[in-house]
Formats: sequence, structure tokens, C-alpha cells
Amino acid sequence: MAAARAPGIVVSRPVTFVTGNAKKLEEVKAILGQSIPFQSLKLDLPELQGEPEDISKEKARLAAIQVNGPVLVEDTCLCFNALKGLPGTYSKWFLQKIGHEGLNNLLMAYEDKSAYALCAFAFALGPNAEPITFLGKTPGKIVPARGPNDFGWDPIFQPDGYDQTYAEMPKEEKNKISHRSKSLAMVKSHFAEAGYTFQMDTAK
Amino acid sequence: MAAARAPGIVVSRPVTFVTGNAKKLEEVKAILGQSIPFQSLKLDLPELQGEPEDISKEKARLAAIQVNGPVLVEDTCLCFNALKGLPGTYSKWFLQKIGHEGLNNLLMAYEDKSAYALCAFAFALGPNAEPITFLGKTPGKIVPARGPNDFGWDPIFQPDGYDQTYAEMPKEEKNKISHRSKSLAMVKSHFAEAGYTFQMDTAK
Repeated sequence: MAAARAPGIVVSRPVTFVTGNAKKLEEVKAILGQSIPFQSLKLDLPELQGEPEDISKEKARLAAIQVNGPVLVEDTCLCFNALKGLPGTYSKWFLQKIGHEGLNNLLMAYEDKSAYALCAFAFALGPNAEPITFLGKTPGKIVPARGPNDFGWDPIFQPDGYDQTYAEMPKEEKNKISHRSKSLAMVKSHFAEAGYTFQMDTAK
Repeated sequence: MAAARAPGIVVSRPVTFVTGNAKKLEEVKAILGQSIPFQSLKLDLPELQGEPEDISKEKARLAAIQVNGPVLVEDTCLCFNALKGLPGTYSKWFLQKIGHEGLNNLLMAYEDKSAYALCAFAFALGPNAEPITFLGKTPGKIVPARGPNDFGWDPIFQPDGYDQTYAEMPKEEKNKISHRSKSLAMVKSHFAEAGYTFQMDTAK
């Protein structure tokens, strides 16, 4: 492709989206479309404890060093308001160990079943570049599991204004309002505004 | 001091116990006594997610590189049986955000209030040495807070066979049965059996 004038930063490599989860990759592709050239890669990064934004930043830093190029990483949390945002970034361990019913049970003591799904994407242009974060948040409530059980805690999260859980919603519908789509919309805007020019070596 | 024959590995530096918590240091000193020359140091190590044993091993690896010598690190967990061992290594975040009452509330849905306190010490002789772990476990149950509130979740953990919570027990009594003392007893035995010879530079 003919690369025209480069108004901003020239990026000579596609953005590496770090994930080992095929479902996440699928969602990201559906939302980002062709706007950003990217490839996906499973990296063995340390998973840190802490606040979601800090975790995703640190992950981006480490990934950019390993990849030696631009990276996009993601951290997803299910945050219960009654538990001040927990289990949050540790949700996947709770899901793994106590399942959907166990997650519901954590709120047994509380009237307040409200929650929010949080997605923190972090983008780093390369090693030594300070990562930028994009936090997407979708409010809802925790309910007994309904819908297909093939994507994490989707069956127990019912977004505000809907009668369906994430799991029950058609993918396109979910992608319109999901925490991940909100966060990715910010990623997309950032790329548009920053005016990065992707100039790949297309050896053919 | 006159160093006699060295039957095993000669260690030319005191063991660095990595902690920023004065209370923990105090407990460790009370239990280890003078058997092992050690110093304490606060290091800024990444806190990882995962299983307690793996976390302490990785912490020891990273600390040994930073210190460039022998290190002892520790990870402490409060594990609820009804929650399959959670909040476990994430207990401190739960304590910080939802407190003692919130921790009790997590078990509202369950008859089973049993729990165990788990302490995972890991020792590494130096960078590149595979860390050894020492897991101490004390069974008990979760109760509404009783006793002085100056050491984490001690007020809500009542060890089996006692009417008092950790917080209500005299320090010496707690040190006899605590998860930390059990783990440290293993550390002590290891040091005795491994026959390390500590040969410090005593410049006087």
C-alpha cells in the first residue's frame, strides 16, 4: 500500500494484542474492525495484584518489552458495589473455584446486588513508552446464571436496562453496550486522534 | 567468631527477610530466635496472582535477584473452606475494602464457617537457586471480630480448640500454634538439616 505523508508517529509493526483467549480476540476483532492492523499473541506475563488500571499498565509495559513493539493488553473485572469493587480483578479465580452460584452467594448478606463490568485496555507504543489506559464500564446487577455458559461470568451479569444477561444477548447487541466495547471505542478514538501511521513491510 | 569445618554450603551473608511489616518481623524474630543470622528489608516486589505456593516461590526468585544473596519471603492467606480456599492470597484486599464484617458476610450463604490460615515461606539461597517453600497451616473458623484490631484479620480467625481469636490470644500462645510459626519451624529445621555455615565478614 502506498503510505502517504505521515502526520504523526510512524508505527512499523502491527499492534500485538496479548491474549490466549479466542473469544476475547473474536470480540476485539468484531469491535475494532479493520481500523488498526493487529495480530494476537499469547504471552506468559505475570498476573499482578492491585487496582485494575495499574495492573493493565504494568502488563503493557512488560509485554512491550517482550514484543519489542506496540502492544495492546486487557484486564477484565466483575466488580460488586456491595463489596467495594471486589472480586474485581480476582473474579476469574472466584469463577474458577466457586462458579456462578458461589459468585451470587458472595452477595447473600446484601440487598444491593448492583455491579459493574470493567474493562481496562492499556496500549504501549513500545518498550520505554508510558502505557495509556482506556477504562470501559457497564453498570448492571448480579443474577442467578441464565444463558449459554461459554464465556466466563456472562451468565450472571445483567446490564442495566436489559432483561437479558450478557450470555443471553446476541453478540452484536452485547457488543453495543459491553464494557469491552466501550473501552475499545476509546482505543479506536485514540488511534484516530493520535494519527499514528502504520507503515508495514508488506513483502509482496 | 571462629568458623569450624564447614560441612555444607557456606553462606557469606545474612538471610534477608523481605518485609515492610514491622509486626511480621517481630513475630519472625520471636520464633526464629538467634538460629539464623538475618536482616530485614522492604523491597518493591510485584505482587502476583495465583496459588500461594507459586506466588511465594516467584517472590523469592525476584527478591534473590534484587538482593543478590539469600532471601526469605512470605505470603499469608486466609482461606475459607466454603469458598474453596478463597479469598486466600487476596485476603488483604478484601480486608482493606470490606473489613472484618465484610469478610464474615462472604460466608452468609454457608453453614460452613471453617477456614484455615496459611503461611507460605519461600527461601532462595541466591539468584538462580530454585526456591524451597514451607507451608504452615492452622485450621479454625471465621467469627465476628473480637480482640485488638492491630494485625490484619486476626480478630476474625478463631483457631480450632481455642475459645479465643488470634487477636485475643497472648502473643506467645499464638506463636505456638500459628500458621506462621508452623511454617517458620520448617524453615528452622531446614536450616539445621541443610547444614549451611554462616560465615559473615565480622570486621571487628
